Amino acid sequence: MALNRQGAIGVFDSGLGGLTVAAALANALPHESMIYLGDTARVPYGTRSPATVVRYARTNTDFLLKQGVKLVIVACNTVSAHALGGLAEGATTPVLGVIRPGARTALARSRGGDIAVLGTPATIRSDAYLHAIHEVDPDRRVHAIACPLFVPLVEEGWLDHPVTTLVAREYLAPLAGTAVDTIILGCTHYPLLRAVISAVAHELIGHPVALVDSAEALAIEAGALLDRANLRAPDATAPGAHRFFVTDAPSTSQRVAERFWGSAVDGDSPLILEHVDVVTSA
Amino acid sequence: MALNRQGAIGVFDSGLGGLTVAAALANALPHESMIYLGDTARVPYGTRSPATVVRYARTNTDFLLKQGVKLVIVACNTVSAHALGGLAEGATTPVLGVIRPGARTALARSRGGDIAVLGTPATIRSDAYLHAIHEVDPDRRVHAIACPLFVPLVEEGWLDHPVTTLVAREYLAPLAGTAVDTIILGCTHYPLLRAVISAVAHELIGHPVALVDSAEALAIEAGALLDRANLRAPDATAPGAHRFFVTDAPSTSQRVAERFWGSAVDGDSPLILEHVDVVTSA
Repeated sequence: MALNRQGAIGVFDSGLGGLTVAAALANALPHESMIYLGDTARVPYGTRSPATVVRYARTNTDFLLKQGVKLVIVACNTVSAHALGGLAEGATTPVLGVIRPGARTALARSRGGDIAVLGTPATIRSDAYLHAIHEVDPDRRVHAIACPLFVPLVEEGWLDHPVTTLVAREYLAPLAGTAVDTIILGCTHYPLLRAVISAVAHELIGHPVALVDSAEALAIEAGALLDRANLRAPDATAPGAHRFFVTDAPSTSQRVAERFWGSAVDGDSPLILEHVDVVTSA
Repeated sequence: MALNRQGAIGVFDSGLGGLTVAAALANALPHESMIYLGDTARVPYGTRSPATVVRYARTNTDFLLKQGVKLVIVACNTVSAHALGGLAEGATTPVLGVIRPGARTALARSRGGDIAVLGTPATIRSDAYLHAIHEVDPDRRVHAIACPLFVPLVEEGWLDHPVTTLVAREYLAPLAGTAVDTIILGCTHYPLLRAVISAVAHELIGHPVALVDSAEALAIEAGALLDRANLRAPDATAPGAHRFFVTDAPSTSQRVAERFWGSAVDGDSPLILEHVDVVTSA
C-alpha cells in the first residue's frame, strides 16, 4: 500500500504531553491534518520496563497505521529513547522520534559550548540524548539532568509559581560555572516552563543560553521529510483538520489537554477528545 | 521522490561477509536486483567506536540511496547492533537489519527452550540480540557467546578442519546441560560453519538444536516488506541483475568474495567486484 499525500500525520504519546509536539507540528505545517493518540489509560511509561514500553508503542503505532497515516511521530521521549529502532526498522511508513531532531538542533544552535539535557529520570537514564549527540559529534560535552518534579509542576499548572523557580534553581545548580550554551528541553512538558528555565539558567551560567524545544526541532524535520518523500498535503490553502484520541475516559483529560494544546495554537481545530481502546481494537 | 518497484535492493556490510546475506536474498527473491557494497577499505567495524560505526554506516547508506535503491539492508551485525535506529528513523526508504529478523525467527522456531546467540565480541557486548528477543518475550533465557576465532577460521577457509571443531567445542562448552533448543548464527560468516556448529551443539546438548541463520530470516522479512509496500520487482520472470561494489582494491577480495557468495547461489549473476570510493563520491 503506497503512502498517501492526503493521509494525516499520526502522533502518539504516553499521555497528553505530546500535545505540545502536536501543537508545534500544527504551527510549522498548518495545512497538514493530524491524528493524535494519547495513551492515557496506560500513562506513565517512564516507570515501565523497556519490553513493555516497546509493546505499548507497537499497539499505538498499529492504531495510527490503520487510520492510514503517512508519517508516524513518536512524541514521547521515553518511547523515542527505548523503542524507536524497533518501530522504525522495516517500517514502510516513515517514523520520527523527538530525540534525534532535538539533539541535532542543539548541535546546530550551540556555538561549540557544552550542551545540557533536561529530562525525566527514564529519559536521562537511557542516555538517548547523549548517544544522539555523540552520533554527530563524539567529543561534545553533555550535562544530563533528571528533573522529576517538572512534570507534576506543569500538570498542577504552576508554570510561573515561585516554587517552580526554586525547584529549577536546585535542578540546574550543577550548570553553574560550566561552558553550557545550549539546553535541550527533553520532555514534552518542559516547553511550558521555558520562561522559568531560561531565567534560572541565565542567572546560574552568567550569560543567555539557547533553549531547544525538541518538539519544534521535530516539526522542522517532519516538514523536510514530507518534502523529501513528496508527501506534503496537496491542498496548500486549506487548514489541517485534526482528531484527538485518548485511551482513558476523555472527561478527565480535557483541562490538562487544553493547557498543552491551547497554549501554543490559535484558531485551529477545536480540541475534542474521543475515546478509543487500542488494545481491543487492534 | 517515491520509491520505485524497479529499483534494486541495496545491501551493505563492513566487508564481504554480508555476501552470505546477499546470497540468501538472491535465493529467496530471485527476481529482485541487488546493489551490494562491501566497505573493505574500512573493515572491520567491530573494533571501532559506536560513533564511527554510525558515521561509516551513513556514508554507505547514502551511496546506496544515490543508486535509487527501494530498500536498504544492513547486512552487518555490528552496524545493526549500533546504528540501526539512527539509519531507520526518519528514513523515506525502508531499512532492515539482520538482528531483529534473526531474533524473531529464533523465537518462532524454538519450542520454548533457551536460545543461544553466537556472535563477534562487539555484537555480543552490545546485547542487541538479547534486547531484540526480550522485545518480544521478556522472560526468555538467552545464552550469548562471543566466538572471536570463527571469522578468521572462515576467512582461512577451514570450514571443516579439525581445528575448527576443537574451537567450536571450546566456545560452545557453556551450552552443555542447558535447555537450549535454538542457536542464532549472529554473524555473517557463521553460516559457513553450520555443519560444525550443528554437530558440536548436538554432541554437547544431547539433542538436535535448530540453527537460525539471520541472513535467511532477514530475506524472508525483506520479501514480506516488499509485498506490504507494493515494491516487488514488476517482472516476475526475469532473474535479478546484481552489482557488487567494494571500497578497497577489488583484486584482493575476489577469492574470499566467491567463498561467501558462491557457496550459496548457483547460476546467478557473475561476481564482478567494482571499486567505489564512498567517502569522496558522497
